[in-house]
Amino acid sequence: MPRLSDMEESFVAWLRSQVTASPQLPLALDDDASLFLDAANERLVTTTDLLCEDVHFDLREASLELVGRKALAVNLSDLAAMAAVPRLAFVSIAWPSDRDPLLARQLYQGLLELAKPFNVQLGGGDTNRWPGKLVINVTVIGQATSRGVLRRSGAQLGDAILVTGPLGGSILGHHLDFEPRVQLALDLNARYQLHAGMDISDGLSLDLSRLTTMSGVGAELELASIPITDAARRLSRSTGRTPLEHALSDGEDFELLLTVPPDDAARILSDNPLSHSIVQVGTIMAGEGVWYRDASGQRHRMSAEGYRH
Amino acid sequence: MPRLSDMEESFVAWLRSQVTASPQLPLALDDDASLFLDAANERLVTTTDLLCEDVHFDLREASLELVGRKALAVNLSDLAAMAAVPRLAFVSIAWPSDRDPLLARQLYQGLLELAKPFNVQLGGGDTNRWPGKLVINVTVIGQATSRGVLRRSGAQLGDAILVTGPLGGSILGHHLDFEPRVQLALDLNARYQLHAGMDISDGLSLDLSRLTTMSGVGAELELASIPITDAARRLSRSTGRTPLEHALSDGEDFELLLTVPPDDAARILSDNPLSHSIVQVGTIMAGEGVWYRDASGQRHRMSAEGYRH
Repeated sequence: MPRLSDMEESFVAWLRSQVTASPQLPLALDDDASLFLDAANERLVTTTDLLCEDVHFDLREASLELVGRKALAVNLSDLAAMAAVPRLAFVSIAWPSDRDPLLARQLYQGLLELAKPFNVQLGGGDTNRWPGKLVINVTVIGQATSRGVLRRSGAQLGDAILVTGPLGGSILGHHLDFEPRVQLALDLNARYQLHAGMDISDGLSLDLSRLTTMSGVGAELELASIPITDAARRLSRSTGRTPLEHALSDGEDFELLLTVPPDDAARILSDNPLSHSIVQVGTIMAGEGVWYRDASGQRHRMSAEGYRH
Repeated sequence: MPRLSDMEESFVAWLRSQVTASPQLPLALDDDASLFLDAANERLVTTTDLLCEDVHFDLREASLELVGRKALAVNLSDLAAMAAVPRLAFVSIAWPSDRDPLLARQLYQGLLELAKPFNVQLGGGDTNRWPGKLVINVTVIGQATSRGVLRRSGAQLGDAILVTGPLGGSILGHHLDFEPRVQLALDLNARYQLHAGMDISDGLSLDLSRLTTMSGVGAELELASIPITDAARRLSRSTGRTPLEHALSDGEDFELLLTVPPDDAARILSDNPLSHSIVQVGTIMAGEGVWYRDASGQRHRMSAEGYRH
């Protein structure tokens, strides 16, 4: 339930309490996707994301193709976060009644074009017209590999904290055309030992604080090593915030955040699989919270200030 | 894709063409839910429905509990239509930003109260706040039994056409508190030979015309035997349309429409399982279209005028 943070704390706590795991259907609801065993003990992994016009996209800036693409991409990123193989997508739309319904085809075309290289099939859906703005919900069902799934709760003391690409400034365009890290996640999970993973959807500092909380550990970030996008630098000129602040707190980067035992982390960094710019940005420590050191070497606790839509 | 009829024909034709079945993932997209084989050849059945405020419910008339209940119930009805066992529900909401977010709990409570007797678990979801009206999307994953699933395409010449309860006037309240016919569908599918099935969501005449088209057959309705609700009679007083017209064309009855070989139909009608008021309303015939006879015995083709939201 990636966006529970939009709602009030007490509601979130109550809702979580309703999602009880059972021996028949083990669920991992604090991860990016839910996990359950089917009848044959195959692990199916399901994720769902709802995108709203003027919150998650602006049709004055984004084409319908890009909106459809994003609606699928955010779900693929959730499955990448768990190193699962996406299989089937179910697409529901509430289409504005004052908009030509034939244009909906552009939305699906953008979605299907992204689905193709991932071998994801359109499995069904629901179409509606209504007097409101465009809403699109996508549910993707995937499968765990024999290596199992990555979860947020697996981080261990001493793990290296890795990110798979530069961060920040996604709002300048990357949030619409990012590449879900599905293949990279599968490759890394197949070749190396990974302890924990999630995708960075609400900003590195907030997402890392979630991962450490779920794992019962703390983290220390090396601020100087955090990779920063050109977009974060450009954005910085108009916002008065530093590029690093953007890299730490902007949302919708959709890179992977991984914690990896030191030996495997060293191998990943030297192998550099798929030519990705994987970077170590910190280390898992005892305690709780996300920390950093200032220029004088003093430790400070980072406020978990992440991007909110 | 139950509500494709809301969109333009050419769009629908195009979208269907995108949902290609493959040997790995056999899909049944003209049914109420999609069907696919998982890795172990277990059949999983998935359905999704999106409900919009002021189209599918009116918050001045319906409580949030009833809206949540309906959002799940329409999906359970889709699985009942295929005689599948519902297992897991994924719930996405777009919550109006001017409405107290704590009230969302009422929505989920209504949904969860219905989920309990069906042993359906909340598997995950997505919560969002936005400046629009309330939108709720529910995806339910279920499983086929060893008896296989019911489809729209299975009707055969001579089949009796059965409905599981009286029809019409659902808008007066039944569309919010109807009981999804899951157990009845499972019982009937286990005990008798059924040829085809769907739920009546857009009105008997339109839904039956869809079933006959998918099966490549025609149908003759016995108008005098169509069961009519009291609500249809009440509604008739203010609409100037007859109760029978309401029973034929009102939507959201959510009773099952089944075609059954004559011997099994006779047994069902005499057994009357679960004390349901199952009634034969017609017979599957050669040809195409839905027909009826007037008082003088003359045959007329029925216009497929169903309920549109």
